[in-house]
Amino acid sequence: MNNKLTQNILAATGAEALVVSQDDYRFYLTGFQSTFGIVIADSQNAAFYTDSRYLEAAKAQIKGFEVLEYPRGQGLEHLIEDYKNIAVPLDRISANEYLSFTASGHILTDSTPAFAKAMSVKTGEELAKVRSACIAADRAFTDLLPEIKEGMSENDVAALLEYLMRTHGASGTSFSTICAFGANASVPHHETGNKKLAFGDIVLIDFGCKVGGYCSDCTRTFLFGDDGKHGEFKQTYAHVLKAHMLVKENFCAGMTGREGDAIARDYFATLGIDKYFTHSLGHGIGINIHESPNLSPKSEDKFENGMVFSDEPGVYFEGRFGIRIEDTVTLENGRVVSLTDSDKSLIIL
Amino acid sequence: MNNKLTQNILAATGAEALVVSQDDYRFYLTGFQSTFGIVIADSQNAAFYTDSRYLEAAKAQIKGFEVLEYPRGQGLEHLIEDYKNIAVPLDRISANEYLSFTASGHILTDSTPAFAKAMSVKTGEELAKVRSACIAADRAFTDLLPEIKEGMSENDVAALLEYLMRTHGASGTSFSTICAFGANASVPHHETGNKKLAFGDIVLIDFGCKVGGYCSDCTRTFLFGDDGKHGEFKQTYAHVLKAHMLVKENFCAGMTGREGDAIARDYFATLGIDKYFTHSLGHGIGINIHESPNLSPKSEDKFENGMVFSDEPGVYFEGRFGIRIEDTVTLENGRVVSLTDSDKSLIIL
Repeated sequence: MNNKLTQNILAATGAEALVVSQDDYRFYLTGFQSTFGIVIADSQNAAFYTDSRYLEAAKAQIKGFEVLEYPRGQGLEHLIEDYKNIAVPLDRISANEYLSFTASGHILTDSTPAFAKAMSVKTGEELAKVRSACIAADRAFTDLLPEIKEGMSENDVAALLEYLMRTHGASGTSFSTICAFGANASVPHHETGNKKLAFGDIVLIDFGCKVGGYCSDCTRTFLFGDDGKHGEFKQTYAHVLKAHMLVKENFCAGMTGREGDAIARDYFATLGIDKYFTHSLGHGIGINIHESPNLSPKSEDKFENGMVFSDEPGVYFEGRFGIRIEDTVTLENGRVVSLTDSDKSLIIL
Repeated sequence: MNNKLTQNILAATGAEALVVSQDDYRFYLTGFQSTFGIVIADSQNAAFYTDSRYLEAAKAQIKGFEVLEYPRGQGLEHLIEDYKNIAVPLDRISANEYLSFTASGHILTDSTPAFAKAMSVKTGEELAKVRSACIAADRAFTDLLPEIKEGMSENDVAALLEYLMRTHGASGTSFSTICAFGANASVPHHETGNKKLAFGDIVLIDFGCKVGGYCSDCTRTFLFGDDGKHGEFKQTYAHVLKAHMLVKENFCAGMTGREGDAIARDYFATLGIDKYFTHSLGHGIGINIHESPNLSPKSEDKFENGMVFSDEPGVYFEGRFGIRIEDTVTLENGRVVSLTDSDKSLIIL
């Protein structure tokens, strides 16, 4: 039996056989989620080995693979002894696994780059799952806004948002929700805590969920009431939104991650606030919340239709305030299409 | 500067220096949660390197470490060039990291066993965090029961329970909540789905949360209404509860994981149902939801006061029903003390 995704990656590595035990890579190849399993594929055949917990479900669901019970007593070496040159992800297998493969005489080829490249361009089926995860996040955020009340903690708001994402079909979060009130929003990776919401606070929420094993990622910054002291915040909000929109309007297939990042960074530079944009513009999103390709000052990643990534310019003024506006987007017919898309005009609750 | 936990692990490895970049190990040594950082310690000094996002917080919170900004341009090798023999976790560093360390001439000692052993015995501070995670799980479960209604899906119940754990102080789940209705309970690792709750259904929920970075783990099995057809279930429930309690009563410090597992397994054997007990009795719990020590038929792990682990006997009758009763427990003065402890007599809602 044969599987196209698997054969493409095998071909890209040039090895005799592909050995894949990593949860995310295995799920990518088989479309089947499990906590244990190994794919072994050569140019003739693709096999998926798992244990008794998953065997029936795997046989029913996986197409293009021979599905077999993993022979726990015999071990992995028994299954790959006929191959000399095997492809494994050298960024992901452990040193002990590496030592075990080489001790039994295998020559190893790194499959990490082939996986990163293949996984960065989504199939229609994968895009549909990302889209569902984005819709669940959007709907949950819309439901959340009228429920936010003075005195709620950052944790309370995060917990409610996570619950709402689940009620809209998510199986869980794609990362720990960041919820920051007031000056906490000036820390790009603030640890959500017990700070209570007060009138006039800035609220920054970075959130995402998983549907069918694929992630969404979204950030919104807004005001909980207008205390009249937020003139600079409002002006800066407009700048960040402009940077966000410039990327959507001008980034296109064929450009590099560096060129994408520069759209936002150069705009901030014209305003003299580029030094407050302390992270990169975006990252690939799929089975993993951070994957290829990257939009950063040094990224030479070439962007193509079907890639999914974040557009998330942000500026941070230590101890005062921070603003980040992020959507999950994709490239379709060469242009940026937004997948998360709840309202980004400044919300004042 | 010096840190006792770090020095103990360094001494156990016999290496010149300890190099630790894994999130959980780093958190264990420093008590500080971050997504990036490296501990480098020799017998004289312990240093924690991190990036600008975490630097201020790390300086304020970490005791016994020199806290420094990671010199990203220079790379790790620059920080360890004076050491020949370094200890790294060979089960955890990647093959590429291994190749990079050895290419620069380092001799590597495996620190994995030293971490596993040290982390298995909790300090008072660690126990307090596990206890808080257990209390949050217990309270959430108690709040959940009156909210369970006919027609709710497995996902609905899991989402509500996760929300309730957060309202009781959890920062998130310690693993994806397993919620299984009816015959789904016969699959030990059922994937929570859209099955709707009906009168007379068995409900199995395996859940846990994190507080302060430490996990809880708990399973309850109960009936949603009594349709009069559950005679065998009720009898078996009493057997599983008896096995669970026999472990609590008879397992003690100084015994091995194999001996603990046998308490439940031998009791099931007297009833002829041991072949339906298809997993091991328990696993260590701490920063990770699965860690040392193990309670399984082959485990020679020696149990000590301060270890935290699960007591989770279960039996599964394919396509019919399954029962698992699990508490997170610890050893105190040689005896088992339950940390999750919501009511385990058979609940019929």
